[in-house]
Amino acid sequence: MKIGFIGSGNVGQTLGRVLIEKGHEVKLGAREPAKLTNWKQSLGNSELASVGTYREAAEHGELVINATPGVVSLEVLQSVGREALAGKILIDVALPLAFENGELRLSSPPNGSLGEQIQHAFPETKVVKTLNTVTSALMVNPLHLAEGQHDMFIGGNDADAKNEVAAYLRQWFGWRNIVDLGDISSARATEGLLLLSSRIYGAFGHSNFNLKVVH
Amino acid sequence: MKIGFIGSGNVGQTLGRVLIEKGHEVKLGAREPAKLTNWKQSLGNSELASVGTYREAAEHGELVINATPGVVSLEVLQSVGREALAGKILIDVALPLAFENGELRLSSPPNGSLGEQIQHAFPETKVVKTLNTVTSALMVNPLHLAEGQHDMFIGGNDADAKNEVAAYLRQWFGWRNIVDLGDISSARATEGLLLLSSRIYGAFGHSNFNLKVVH
Repeated sequence: MKIGFIGSGNVGQTLGRVLIEKGHEVKLGAREPAKLTNWKQSLGNSELASVGTYREAAEHGELVINATPGVVSLEVLQSVGREALAGKILIDVALPLAFENGELRLSSPPNGSLGEQIQHAFPETKVVKTLNTVTSALMVNPLHLAEGQHDMFIGGNDADAKNEVAAYLRQWFGWRNIVDLGDISSARATEGLLLLSSRIYGAFGHSNFNLKVVH
Repeated sequence: MKIGFIGSGNVGQTLGRVLIEKGHEVKLGAREPAKLTNWKQSLGNSELASVGTYREAAEHGELVINATPGVVSLEVLQSVGREALAGKILIDVALPLAFENGELRLSSPPNGSLGEQIQHAFPETKVVKTLNTVTSALMVNPLHLAEGQHDMFIGGNDADAKNEVAAYLRQWFGWRNIVDLGDISSARATEGLLLLSSRIYGAFGHSNFNLKVVH
C-alpha cells in the first residue's frame, strides 16, 4: 500500500521504517525533505522509501498519517489542502502539547481536541485518532510489553475507517486489544492522557508503559 | 478516627458506611441533614454514624473527605471556612464535571484542576486527590475486580499526608497498587480521566472497570 506521512520526526521515521519492512511504499513528508537522506540511507536506500514535501506525501498516500507536532498540525495540514486528503483515511497520531512556564499543557482547545479540529477542517477526510497514547517504540512493537496485554484506543466518525485502521494495527504491529471509544470527539479523552502519561513517566522513570482497562 | 464528609450523596454514604463498619466515627455533612435519616437507619442507627451541616462535619473530622459534586465543591468548602479545615488532611474525591449541550465536560479550568483550586483556597489544609477515578463501589472494594490488580492514583503537595492516605486506602479498602503522581497539579491528569472513563463505559456498557499501568 502507498502510505504518506505528514511529518518526519521520530514517529514518522519509526512507523515508516516498520511499514517499509512490511513491503509498503512509504513517503515521508517534511518541510525540508533534503534533510531526510540519513533516514533513507539507514534503510539501505530501499526503493520503497521516499521523501517529499508535505503535499507530495499526502498525494502519494492511499492512507495518510499525521505525525506532525500537534501544536502545528492544523497549519501544516491546511498547507497541504483538502484535495490531497479528500476521500482518504487520515490516521491522526499527533500529540497536542505545549510547554508554558515549564509546564506540559494541552494545546488543544478546552472542551475540544486536535482530532476534532482536523475532522472539522477536512470534512471529506476520514480522521481516525489512534496510537497517540504510547511511545513510537510501543506503537510498532506492543508485544514487547507484557505480551501485548494492554490497550490501544481508537476513535473516529467513520466505522468502516476505524475497522480498517484497527485491522492494520493488528497486522502491521501486532496490537491485540483495541478499544473503540466512539466518534472523533473521543480524541478529547485520549489526547488528555498526555497529562497522565507524563506523570506516570515521572513516577516510574521510564516510558515503556501503557494502560490496560481491567474489567 | 473521627471522619467528616463534606457531601452526603452516593460517594459519602458508601464510604461512610464502610468506615463505620471499620469502627470509625463518621459524620456526613449535608445542606439538609434531616434528609439523611434513611442512611442512619440503614446502619441500625449506629452510634458511630451522625449527620450535620457541612461545617459540623468539617469540625468533627480529624480527617475530612470532600465528596460534593465537583461543580459546587469550592462554593461549599468556602461556606465551611478555612478554620474548620486548617491543619487537616482533606481527601478530595470530587469529580469536576458538567453536562452542557448533552455533553459531559470538565468543569475545572483549562490548564488547572479542582484539586489545585481547593489547595489554593485552603493553604493550611493538606489536600490529597485520590479515589476520584473509579465508582464508589470500587473505591471501597477494589479486590472485587481482578483481585485488586489495578491502580489507584494519588496526588498532593504534602508527602506525609499522601503516605498517610495511601495507608488508609490499603487498610480500609484493600487497595494494593497506589501510584503517586506527584503534587496536587497531578489532579489535572486524574480529573481528566473522567472523559476516558465515560467513553470506556460507553464501550463496555458497565462501570465495573479501572485502569492498570502495565510496565
